[in-house]
Amino acid sequence: MDIIKPSTIAGVMELLPDSQAVFDRMKNTIEDTFKDYGFLAIDTPVIEKNEILFAKGGGETEKQIFEIASDSKDMSLRFDLTVPLARYVSEHLSDLNFPFKRYQIGKVYRGERNQKGRYKEFYQADIDIIGHNDLAIYNDALLARVIFEAFNRINFPNITFHINNRKLLNGFFKSLEIEDSTEVLRTIDKKDKIGIDKTKTLLKEIIGEDKANKTLEFINADNENTEILDNLAGFADNDLFKKGLEELKTIYDYMIKFGIDDKNIKIDLAITRGLDYYTSTVYETFINGYESIGSVCSGGRYENLASNFTKQNLPGVGMSIGLTRLFYQLQELGLVEEEKSSKIDFLILPMDKEYHFYAIDVLHKLKDQGKKADIFLEDGKFKKKINYADKINAKYAVIIGEEEVSKNQVSIKNMESGEQFNKNIEELDF
Amino acid sequence: MDIIKPSTIAGVMELLPDSQAVFDRMKNTIEDTFKDYGFLAIDTPVIEKNEILFAKGGGETEKQIFEIASDSKDMSLRFDLTVPLARYVSEHLSDLNFPFKRYQIGKVYRGERNQKGRYKEFYQADIDIIGHNDLAIYNDALLARVIFEAFNRINFPNITFHINNRKLLNGFFKSLEIEDSTEVLRTIDKKDKIGIDKTKTLLKEIIGEDKANKTLEFINADNENTEILDNLAGFADNDLFKKGLEELKTIYDYMIKFGIDDKNIKIDLAITRGLDYYTSTVYETFINGYESIGSVCSGGRYENLASNFTKQNLPGVGMSIGLTRLFYQLQELGLVEEEKSSKIDFLILPMDKEYHFYAIDVLHKLKDQGKKADIFLEDGKFKKKINYADKINAKYAVIIGEEEVSKNQVSIKNMESGEQFNKNIEELDF
Repeated sequence: MDIIKPSTIAGVMELLPDSQAVFDRMKNTIEDTFKDYGFLAIDTPVIEKNEILFAKGGGETEKQIFEIASDSKDMSLRFDLTVPLARYVSEHLSDLNFPFKRYQIGKVYRGERNQKGRYKEFYQADIDIIGHNDLAIYNDALLARVIFEAFNRINFPNITFHINNRKLLNGFFKSLEIEDSTEVLRTIDKKDKIGIDKTKTLLKEIIGEDKANKTLEFINADNENTEILDNLAGFADNDLFKKGLEELKTIYDYMIKFGIDDKNIKIDLAITRGLDYYTSTVYETFINGYESIGSVCSGGRYENLASNFTKQNLPGVGMSIGLTRLFYQLQELGLVEEEKSSKIDFLILPMDKEYHFYAIDVLHKLKDQGKKADIFLEDGKFKKKINYADKINAKYAVIIGEEEVSKNQVSIKNMESGEQFNKNIEELDF
Repeated sequence: MDIIKPSTIAGVMELLPDSQAVFDRMKNTIEDTFKDYGFLAIDTPVIEKNEILFAKGGGETEKQIFEIASDSKDMSLRFDLTVPLARYVSEHLSDLNFPFKRYQIGKVYRGERNQKGRYKEFYQADIDIIGHNDLAIYNDALLARVIFEAFNRINFPNITFHINNRKLLNGFFKSLEIEDSTEVLRTIDKKDKIGIDKTKTLLKEIIGEDKANKTLEFINADNENTEILDNLAGFADNDLFKKGLEELKTIYDYMIKFGIDDKNIKIDLAITRGLDYYTSTVYETFINGYESIGSVCSGGRYENLASNFTKQNLPGVGMSIGLTRLFYQLQELGLVEEEKSSKIDFLILPMDKEYHFYAIDVLHKLKDQGKKADIFLEDGKFKKKINYADKINAKYAVIIGEEEVSKNQVSIKNMESGEQFNKNIEELDF
C-alpha cells in the first residue's frame, strides 16, 4: 500500500500531549474565572450562513473566509465569535436574561497567509456583557477585573490595560474640525509599528502641521494616569469629548476600586481598536516586559451588537483573548511551564498475567478512594513496565509480583524519589 | 438598515445557556473519567488535507464531506476523529509513549440530509488505546470499564455492552465455506432494522437455505452469556474461530472482573460493526429500556490504525460516543436533568450608585473566600434587581441599601427559601 506522508494543513497549532495538557489547563483556568463571575457558556456552530457572516459587509475578513464548497455557496466557517454572538442573542432574545453575560471559547478560521505565528485555525476566548436597551458603564471596569483575574490565575499577574475612549477621541477631532477622522485614526493605530516620525509625516499630510502637532500632543500624553485625566479637560470642550472624558474617568476609578493597581493601567490615548465597531471604551492588554508580542486581550464597548439581525438595541462590552497565538508566543519566549505534574497517581504493574485479577482488585480499591489510577496489561519484563510508569509520569508504580501476592501485599515505588515500600492489601488507604 | 433573520444553518444543535450547562457537564464528566484512567487529551485541527481524509478511499463518508472552497480543492472538514488520530499517531510516532492512551472530544462534520436528530455538526467523544506492534487483548475490557464508569457518572448506570468478535464471525463463515462474507455480514448488520424474516430471506438468497439456517442459529443465540460461550465451541473448529472464541471469553471474564455486572453484558453474535475496519472485538452499547435510540457508544479492535500513513504496525482498540446525538435523544426522552443548581453563589445588589464601592468591597471579601460572586451594576428599582437574581438562579442575593451601609452591614436573602438576614461586613464568612 502506498504510504501518504502524515501531516496537518499549514498554519494550525497541533500539540503533543504534554503541551496539550498545559494549553488545556490555561484554557480551563480562564474558563473557570469567567464562570466564577457568573458568565454563561454558549457553543455556536463553526459553520454559519454566509448571509450572517457577511451581514456587516465585506472588508478584510471576507477575503480571509473559508467557504464550504457547495452548489449554493451559502456557508462558511466563522472568522470570529462576535458575529455568531450577535446572531445568537438576536435569535434567542426572548429566552435570555439581560444583562446577558456570556463567554465562548472556540476555534475560529481565517485564511491567513502561511507565516510563523499566524494561524488559519485558532482559539478565541471571548467574554461579553450585553444589555437590552442599556448597560451601565461600570461593567467596562468589571470586565477588566475578570480579565485581570484570569491572567493572574494563569500566572501572568503583571499585565497592563491600555484604555481609551472613542467618544473622547472623536470629540477631540471634532474640536479640531476634522470631519472624517478615519484616516487619522488609522494612522494613530499604526504609530507603534511605523514610529513617531513617520506618524507625524503622515498626519501632516492628512490634516496639516498645526492639527498634526495638536493630535500628537494629545495622543502622546505620558504622565501618571491621574495627571493625564486631569489635563485632558484642556484639550476640548464639546459634549462628546466631555462625555468620553467622564466615562474614561469613571472606568479608571472603578478599575482601581476593582483591585487593579494603578501600575496595571495605562490611560493610552493612542489606542483606537478598529474604526467603526467600538463606540466608547477600548482596551488592549499587554504583558509587562513582553509588550513586543502585542496585545494579548483586546476589546471595548459597542453601542449596538446586532443591528443587522434585530431592531432591538443591544449595547455591550466585550474582550477577547487570542489563546492560540498567546500560547505560541509564550512558548517561544520560554514562558510556558511544561506540565511536570503527574497525570496519574498510581500505575499498577502486574508482573505476570496470572496476577492480573489481583491487580484489578487493587485498581478497584484505589478507584474507590477517588484516585487517578490505571493498570498496565502488556506482557514484558520489569524494566519495560517501570519505564512506562516513568515515561507517563505516574506518581507511584504499584508493583505486583509473586512475592507481593504471596504476602497479600503490593510494592509501591515513589517514581520521583525512588523510595519503595510494601503495603498490605487491606491497608491501601491514601 | 435591512434586518437579516438570525438563524443557524440547518442540522446543528445550538443550546440555550441552561441546556448548554447540562451538556457541558455531561461532556466534562466523561472527559474527567477518561483522564482518571490516564488517557491523554489531543486536539487536532478541524480542517485536514483531503489526501489524509480520503486515504482509505471513498465510500459513504466521502459523499458527505464538507470541502473547503478553494482553487486547489485540497482541504475538508474532518468527518470523524479516527482518521485524524491515525494521522496524528503516525506523524508524532517517535514522540509518543506506547501503549498510547488518548481521548479526543471534538466536533466532526457530515453533510447529512436535513432530518430530525441528524446532525451536520456533532460532538464525538473518542477514546483509544494504541499499541506499537502489539497490544494485549485485556485492554478491550479495560476500555469497556472506562466507558461503563463514564455512563455511571453521567447517571446512566444501566447500560448493556453488546460484544462480539470478528475472528469468531469470520471463522464461523469459513467453516461454512463462505469465502466472501461481506454480503452476509451486511445483512446480519441490518437484522434489527429489517426483521428476522427478511434477514432469513436475504441470507437464503446469498448462501442457500442450509447455511442461512446455520447462520441464523449462530447469530440468534440468546441464552445466558456463559451458556452462549460454552455452546459456541460446537459451531466450528478452525483456528480463526478458536482464536476469536478465546478472545471473546477472555474479554468477557475481564469485563466481569473489572466490575461490569453480567447483566450489563450481552454476548451478541449479530453485532458486526462495519465491514473492514475492525478485526477482533466489536462492541455496541445500549441504555437499558431505551434500546430503540440505538447504540450510544460503539467501537472495537483494529489490527492496524494507520497503514495508510506509516509502515509501523499500530494495533488498537477504541470506542466512540456520539455526544450530540445522545444528548438530543436523552432530551427527547425527558431524561436530561435541567440544570437547577445555581451558577453563582452570591449576586450583590447595590440599591444605588452611591453604594457601588461599598458593594465592591463586599465582592472582594466573597472572592477572597473563593466564592462565585458577581455584582449587579445597573440602575433600577429593587424589584428589577431581585428579579434578575432570581432569573439567573443566584443562591443568595446580597442587598446593599442605605440602612445596610449605615449599619456597616449587608442584607442576605436566600433566594430559594426567601429567608433574609443581616450580617456585619466584618463577619462575612461563608
